[in-house]
Amino acid sequence: MIDSACYPRLSRVQTPDDLRTFDETELGAVAGELRAYLIESVGKSGGHFAAGLGVIELTVALHYLFNTPVDQLVWDVGHQTYPHKILTGRRDSIHTVKQKDGVAPFPKREESEYDTFGVGHSSTSISAALGMAIARQRQGDDRKVVAVIGDGAMTAGMAFEALAHAGGMDDEPNVLVVLNDNNMSISEAVGGLTKMLGRATASRTLNALREGGKKILGDKHSPPARFVKRWEEQWKGMFVPSTAFEQMGFHYTGPIDGHDLPLLLSTLKRLKDAKGPQLLHIMTTKGKGYEPAEDDQIGYHAVGPFDPSKGLPTKSAPKKPTYTDIFGDWLCDAAAAEPQLLGITPAMREGSGLVRFSKEYPERYFDVAIAEQHAVTLAAGMATQGAKPVVAIYSTFLQRAYDQLVHDVAVQELDVLFAIDRAGVVGPDGATHAGNLDLSFLRCVPHMVVMAPGDEAECRQMLSTGLQYNGPAAVRYPRGTGPGAAVGTDLSTLEIGKAQLRHQGSRIAILAFGSPLSAAEQVGRELGLSVVNMRFIKPLDKAMLLELARTHEGFVTVEDNVVAGGAGSGVSELLNTEAVLMPVLHLGLPDSFQHHASREDLLAEAGIDAAGIRESILKRWPKLKDNATPLSAAS
Amino acid sequence: MIDSACYPRLSRVQTPDDLRTFDETELGAVAGELRAYLIESVGKSGGHFAAGLGVIELTVALHYLFNTPVDQLVWDVGHQTYPHKILTGRRDSIHTVKQKDGVAPFPKREESEYDTFGVGHSSTSISAALGMAIARQRQGDDRKVVAVIGDGAMTAGMAFEALAHAGGMDDEPNVLVVLNDNNMSISEAVGGLTKMLGRATASRTLNALREGGKKILGDKHSPPARFVKRWEEQWKGMFVPSTAFEQMGFHYTGPIDGHDLPLLLSTLKRLKDAKGPQLLHIMTTKGKGYEPAEDDQIGYHAVGPFDPSKGLPTKSAPKKPTYTDIFGDWLCDAAAAEPQLLGITPAMREGSGLVRFSKEYPERYFDVAIAEQHAVTLAAGMATQGAKPVVAIYSTFLQRAYDQLVHDVAVQELDVLFAIDRAGVVGPDGATHAGNLDLSFLRCVPHMVVMAPGDEAECRQMLSTGLQYNGPAAVRYPRGTGPGAAVGTDLSTLEIGKAQLRHQGSRIAILAFGSPLSAAEQVGRELGLSVVNMRFIKPLDKAMLLELARTHEGFVTVEDNVVAGGAGSGVSELLNTEAVLMPVLHLGLPDSFQHHASREDLLAEAGIDAAGIRESILKRWPKLKDNATPLSAAS
Repeated sequence: MIDSACYPRLSRVQTPDDLRTFDETELGAVAGELRAYLIESVGKSGGHFAAGLGVIELTVALHYLFNTPVDQLVWDVGHQTYPHKILTGRRDSIHTVKQKDGVAPFPKREESEYDTFGVGHSSTSISAALGMAIARQRQGDDRKVVAVIGDGAMTAGMAFEALAHAGGMDDEPNVLVVLNDNNMSISEAVGGLTKMLGRATASRTLNALREGGKKILGDKHSPPARFVKRWEEQWKGMFVPSTAFEQMGFHYTGPIDGHDLPLLLSTLKRLKDAKGPQLLHIMTTKGKGYEPAEDDQIGYHAVGPFDPSKGLPTKSAPKKPTYTDIFGDWLCDAAAAEPQLLGITPAMREGSGLVRFSKEYPERYFDVAIAEQHAVTLAAGMATQGAKPVVAIYSTFLQRAYDQLVHDVAVQELDVLFAIDRAGVVGPDGATHAGNLDLSFLRCVPHMVVMAPGDEAECRQMLSTGLQYNGPAAVRYPRGTGPGAAVGTDLSTLEIGKAQLRHQGSRIAILAFGSPLSAAEQVGRELGLSVVNMRFIKPLDKAMLLELARTHEGFVTVEDNVVAGGAGSGVSELLNTEAVLMPVLHLGLPDSFQHHASREDLLAEAGIDAAGIRESILKRWPKLKDNATPLSAAS
Repeated sequence: MIDSACYPRLSRVQTPDDLRTFDETELGAVAGELRAYLIESVGKSGGHFAAGLGVIELTVALHYLFNTPVDQLVWDVGHQTYPHKILTGRRDSIHTVKQKDGVAPFPKREESEYDTFGVGHSSTSISAALGMAIARQRQGDDRKVVAVIGDGAMTAGMAFEALAHAGGMDDEPNVLVVLNDNNMSISEAVGGLTKMLGRATASRTLNALREGGKKILGDKHSPPARFVKRWEEQWKGMFVPSTAFEQMGFHYTGPIDGHDLPLLLSTLKRLKDAKGPQLLHIMTTKGKGYEPAEDDQIGYHAVGPFDPSKGLPTKSAPKKPTYTDIFGDWLCDAAAAEPQLLGITPAMREGSGLVRFSKEYPERYFDVAIAEQHAVTLAAGMATQGAKPVVAIYSTFLQRAYDQLVHDVAVQELDVLFAIDRAGVVGPDGATHAGNLDLSFLRCVPHMVVMAPGDEAECRQMLSTGLQYNGPAAVRYPRGTGPGAAVGTDLSTLEIGKAQLRHQGSRIAILAFGSPLSAAEQVGRELGLSVVNMRFIKPLDKAMLLELARTHEGFVTVEDNVVAGGAGSGVSELLNTEAVLMPVLHLGLPDSFQHHASREDLLAEAGIDAAGIRESILKRWPKLKDNATPLSAAS
């Protein structure tokens, strides 16, 4: 429970209705308590931190002025919604964030009526808010709709698509877009949009002309000079930096200080009832009010539990490297050997392990901002010139570039390597970040080579294999650490489409794809079954599968992808094509979106940890322990 | 062969090298011949027409000034590349365009070294060109790279992503983007970008101020007035309409008349060696030089063979309606009955059959421009407010919105209906337009209901079913006409997940998904096999499948989707899950990208026409004709 001595005002706020009982003059104090509470709470639980601190004042102002949840508030990405969650009924449970059955780390419709649109991926808020506004207007309902989007999220194409549509509509929809400009995305602000926003105050041409004008127009109080000044202000107001937004049909206000609560309140009051599409540009500081976070915004983007009085603990050297680390090191080593290698990330330098590469090979490193579609087609363009682009991307974000992967890379058989991190079960970030589908949506694409490593050493080998392979290839590996295999330092490769028999057993062959290999191997050895490290989802090792089919009574396929259309499904297709009749048990992720919880919990829930695999096999073949009876005998 | 009497200059041009032997003063005449030849040729063959006529001068100027194919020319979408193809070795074969083994309707790398980047989907050119430019610059090679993109294509988010990246790079890449502004996309120019471009000449604030200024500044030749004029021009040059491009870091030139060849040549000469990212804005007229096409740009976008002296033949009433027609009529009828229905198209009003709906329900019709991502999340936002959005989209373009379908619609189980046209084999437009993957990439998504109609009547019923269903649903139907079933006028629905036994036969059950139903039924009746119209890819009719498994010796699945992860694959998964051992033969599209040809040719090639289905079944079960022998007996 919240300590009312420390938080005399916040302790009285269960919902925005309570917030609205305060006098406007007290809101600064409420905001102060909210900030302190957030620091205390995330200090205990860990979670997304710096983004929330940056929108304390905005969150208070929006919930104070707008009639939430009747008015609809759409938060982009959702990293920044802890203050929103605290003010909307989740104050006393916010410490459970990211835990199983705890508060979700992002807005989630099932969790609260104040969470109007679930997110996790960036840049969806304007589209969603516009949809809400249009639907409501068509229904004759004039509730307000507000989207809050960061400058980082604004770089994605779909945000532009939504702005262009909203601004271009004849019956101007009443939607307010708050551009929360903290001059940084998760990684670093990059690209032309940032440049554009940064021009708010500077125009060399303007200054040069102004200097020249002084001579001609004379005294600054002369009527011509005053006219020109007014003229200039008019132009500036219209075009700097509002231009693009204004030109696309938005009414632009700003930029204003997003931490100046009275100014925010007065501005929002005015915009609340304004007609047509409005864009309010506010400037904020990520981590605001907690100095260590202001100084290290990337480090404090998402944190583990820490003592706010001491700041983040210095990272102790981890016991074993993550798959991300292995990719990062491989990329540098491969770049040293292959001068044509170019590395691309859509704003995920830290998350994808590209920090070292970006420092050692700055001229071969491309952070394209949150722009997955462009990232992939950029790579395709590079590949046409004989370069060897490597696109480092999370499985879930690759969904954003699916058409580019199909239409630009695969159709043309271009030599692009996809290093797909966070594949399969991801965990605490919840359904929006899950990488449960990639084997299905990649396996159906002609020309693709798709690999999943069973351990860290193999991950490195597969990356080398994909790089050397002259065509589209993907290596997908899970979040976090693997079984701890010693990773080589060379750039040795694997034979394309060749599986590895890990354990020769009998009766049943367990065919493991990627990270469930360790669990599968444990079960296989225990039950005396054969275990195969399949390595390649596409192409499958047909020769080995047919040989195993001749010598075994059944197959078990295990993968950390949905069963529907996944790797195991490919095994069945192959058996059917070869007219081999063989009992197959498919183990994989369920046909549902998994909620946030630890990876271990989710793997267990899906039954693809060792206990689950064992149980499923014995349930399917209860006679397995009786060596004399064929498995197919009627029970 | 080209008639050198009619085309004295063009007949001497096999490649751009020949073009470059002409004196600059003769190029206007060459352009005239090229235009005439294009009109004559497309008149005979049919194909994309109006877009090519709009870029005659540009094509001549680019190939004349740039050293193609060493310099790289990237055409966006590719509708407009017939003149390019004529000048680059395909003059005498351009009449075979779209035919099997003929010239591809879009740029295609395999076809010519002048086709630097294959396309079909819009808005990829800037990304691809930037990738080329970067790769070349890193290789120390200074060949030029030019992207030509239409204003329609510029509305897509990925074009914006690419502009922002190119403009924001520290080492400014040498890439020239030609914005071919013909004030229309395939359908109609919509949205904020168009608005922005349209402001080139108008600014009310400016005009008002100018009027006021006259009084203050006095005579227009006075020094203050002249200063203000210069000032204004400076601002206009910088900001109207260049602003967004300039602000994003591009050097902007234009707008200039794209049919003024001398002006084009002199401008391009200057830009050719300019450093950093350049944007040249040209204004052109789609259909230029052929009056009927200028007057009806949509009608002349793509044409069948016609007599240029007479114009397009008046369309005779087609014998039977296409699936697109059926959707269009259904949408209007459904809108009459369901006031919450809203219709969305990403710039495909004509192609998706929304013309009537757009007229009858203008306030419920949303053309969001080429912006598939936004289209889907907009629908998701609408659905949160109780609206019933219908997204009309081509299968191949849905790939652009895959993440939005997963992350915004399916994760939240929102009530969005996808009406997916051009699913399966598409035909003459080639691999880039194929809808061969959708069953695979949709089936793996939790919460989706996925349907494919066996005939037109069922298509209507499925649309009603999907609309009534409270959750994400998709109906995918093929290009063109179906078997000709009489379509009802009511809004009756089907039971979700219920298949239809079409013919009770024995031994083998053919399970048909969607459009191959007719062919399957023919073969089934002929061979005495059972035939099932599966209707639902997801969920499958488990009860019927298990019953069929008990009473038959084998299954044949037939679908117009790749086998990998497709509908048939789902049948195998179900049998495996239920521990039913059953021979299954999967028939479907191959694991390769099909080249352009007629739908019939491609279906035959894939073996899913009646002849192919029959042959595959008899090959798999040669004993089928011998009723006494079990099919599984060893041969």
